[in-house]
Amino acid sequence: MHSLFQQFQVRFQYPVHFTNGLFRPENPLLADTLRPSESGQPPKAFFVVDGGVAAAHPQLLGQIRAYAEVYRDAFRLSGEPLVVPGGEACKNTTEWAERIERAVNDHGIDRHSYMVVAGGGAVLDMAGFAAAVSHRGVRLVRVPTTVLAQNDSGVGVKNSINAFNKKNFLGTFAPPFAVLNDFDFLVALDDRDWRGGMAEAVKVSLIKDAAFFDFLCQNAARLTARDMAAMQQLIHRCAELHLNHIASGDPFEMGSSRPLDFGHWAAHKLEALTGYRIRHGEAVAVGIAVDSVYSHLSGRLSAGDLEQILLLLEHLGFDLYAPELSVRTNGQLTVVQGLHEFREHLGGRLTIMLLEHIGKGVEVHEMDERLVEESIAVLAERVVKSPVASG
Amino acid sequence: MHSLFQQFQVRFQYPVHFTNGLFRPENPLLADTLRPSESGQPPKAFFVVDGGVAAAHPQLLGQIRAYAEVYRDAFRLSGEPLVVPGGEACKNTTEWAERIERAVNDHGIDRHSYMVVAGGGAVLDMAGFAAAVSHRGVRLVRVPTTVLAQNDSGVGVKNSINAFNKKNFLGTFAPPFAVLNDFDFLVALDDRDWRGGMAEAVKVSLIKDAAFFDFLCQNAARLTARDMAAMQQLIHRCAELHLNHIASGDPFEMGSSRPLDFGHWAAHKLEALTGYRIRHGEAVAVGIAVDSVYSHLSGRLSAGDLEQILLLLEHLGFDLYAPELSVRTNGQLTVVQGLHEFREHLGGRLTIMLLEHIGKGVEVHEMDERLVEESIAVLAERVVKSPVASG
Repeated sequence: MHSLFQQFQVRFQYPVHFTNGLFRPENPLLADTLRPSESGQPPKAFFVVDGGVAAAHPQLLGQIRAYAEVYRDAFRLSGEPLVVPGGEACKNTTEWAERIERAVNDHGIDRHSYMVVAGGGAVLDMAGFAAAVSHRGVRLVRVPTTVLAQNDSGVGVKNSINAFNKKNFLGTFAPPFAVLNDFDFLVALDDRDWRGGMAEAVKVSLIKDAAFFDFLCQNAARLTARDMAAMQQLIHRCAELHLNHIASGDPFEMGSSRPLDFGHWAAHKLEALTGYRIRHGEAVAVGIAVDSVYSHLSGRLSAGDLEQILLLLEHLGFDLYAPELSVRTNGQLTVVQGLHEFREHLGGRLTIMLLEHIGKGVEVHEMDERLVEESIAVLAERVVKSPVASG
Repeated sequence: MHSLFQQFQVRFQYPVHFTNGLFRPENPLLADTLRPSESGQPPKAFFVVDGGVAAAHPQLLGQIRAYAEVYRDAFRLSGEPLVVPGGEACKNTTEWAERIERAVNDHGIDRHSYMVVAGGGAVLDMAGFAAAVSHRGVRLVRVPTTVLAQNDSGVGVKNSINAFNKKNFLGTFAPPFAVLNDFDFLVALDDRDWRGGMAEAVKVSLIKDAAFFDFLCQNAARLTARDMAAMQQLIHRCAELHLNHIASGDPFEMGSSRPLDFGHWAAHKLEALTGYRIRHGEAVAVGIAVDSVYSHLSGRLSAGDLEQILLLLEHLGFDLYAPELSVRTNGQLTVVQGLHEFREHLGGRLTIMLLEHIGKGVEVHEMDERLVEESIAVLAERVVKSPVASG
């Protein structure tokens, strides 16, 4: 009896829009984004809001209700917006994802209805996971409210929650229905979150776009001074590079290569080691520094390029070292375990992106533990010599 | 600032192989299926086994261990095979999916490792869900052990568990890495499960392939007499039609059309109404009967075609009616609520497949509740006149 071979392609598409005042009654973007149901009825939309964002914008929930009233011919608000804890806390338990799944059931949200999630990367990850598994996927509209979410995670195709003390252990690949980046949310960010997202811009510039790296160097002062126009350019270009990478590569990561995870093996481990005291973007900056020094010590990156990279990170206000990098377990640097966990999470062969020069990455399949130690020592010493305070 | 538009395609492919004695040491199929990891090391494989199957085949777990020993250069057994309860019970709680996720963590199963799941449709659904969300998807090899799983659910792209008293409320679309159909498992099936899976073959023949319907009519006696050669032909053709449909249509069901769900709106509700006393295939047979009578009463299907359909189902040993079909809530037939739940689960516009003639379906977007009642009454009366006992 002959074997059967199944083969098909699935097309995914979604827009990433940039706006201000998304919930102002005169802004039709959100209402225009929610496609009418095939029955011609206004579709249902269920809102999930990051508690940190709701606290920083006390008028937000009222604005959402008022917006839904103005655009009642375009969509129908399903129940009250659900406010969930912001930050990693919402991902460390199944509780919040389950509450959202329950709300999907209670409000009769179906695969052609919408879940609109406004928040930082952690809330988008968690709510995105709940949306992706409810009815095998309800339509997700992401409204990222941080630099990090607007230029990186919020425009991508992944979602997740943490489990077994491992970041993003549970999740799916699930492209959103649309991403609506409202720059007004950035005004209320604290300095750490304003800065944090810029680490992903540095990362993508280093592996893909030297001109963008130059832009970041030239605008570092404006960016740290919270110049909104410079930040908008940063976010737009970083999001564009991120989207291009996904579309031209391996969107659902079936292979072993993960170029966009440059600097991330140490970052993920560092976040966990500090109990998430260090935020993702801050950890990524440290991870970039570690892998850049390593790229130099292993004979790839020039000393000049390395210095430019470290200076840019410092000018943007990042710490390049955290004491947890030097913690040891059974004599071995604990962070080095991150290499193993990184491989295990991604699967396949260990594949780490390093730098040949600014704008050009190169993949390696082995990391020399002694050189990792030396790289961390270089950073520890640099910080002692010229400490940079984080804001 | 201009909008960005993301667009990409993802290619999926997997084989469906047919075999006997999958775990016999002289059968290399499974070992050949597990692709070596990129590092050249034998990949890890974690086994999940349906408790009903393990009970019916007491030697199975030992065979799996022995097989892994014979083919130790091809793959490495990770931990002991996990035995989970068979049937819908394993889907009605998150417990078993969570145990599997924990095993993925404990055994270091990564995205390039394998989970091999041997069992009926419910176990494949549940373990498939756990596999799909662990590390955003580890490689799943399905070993379906029932007619239903071998010709229908096990060759498709869905997984699920139940939640909020709704079947398949949580799940994802996740094509398997491979499907290995071992006919030897069918010998141990009880008569109800042997018969049950044939309902999906009748279904797909009615909407897609009149010649296959004729095959079923001509072979009904052999099939009920448990003729293995006839059953193999049934399974192969049904699986092929199912695969073709997925590949040529809308694999991840982004639209409203669900032709393969012919007969399923009533079936899903009937399963729940009977507390899963009636199994899926049995419920699908009833659902096919209801929608075939409805197709006739609404002026589509001829009386001759209808009689052929009902006779085939009866010859295959199916009951065409269950008392729960006539239960009412607030005066309305409770099963009719299934129409609403069916639409909500699928999303979009209500879309029901009916029949124009044998081999040709037609979609409608409204169902006349009065005609549904009449259809059920026709079946109730038919059963009174010529009762068919289920095995």
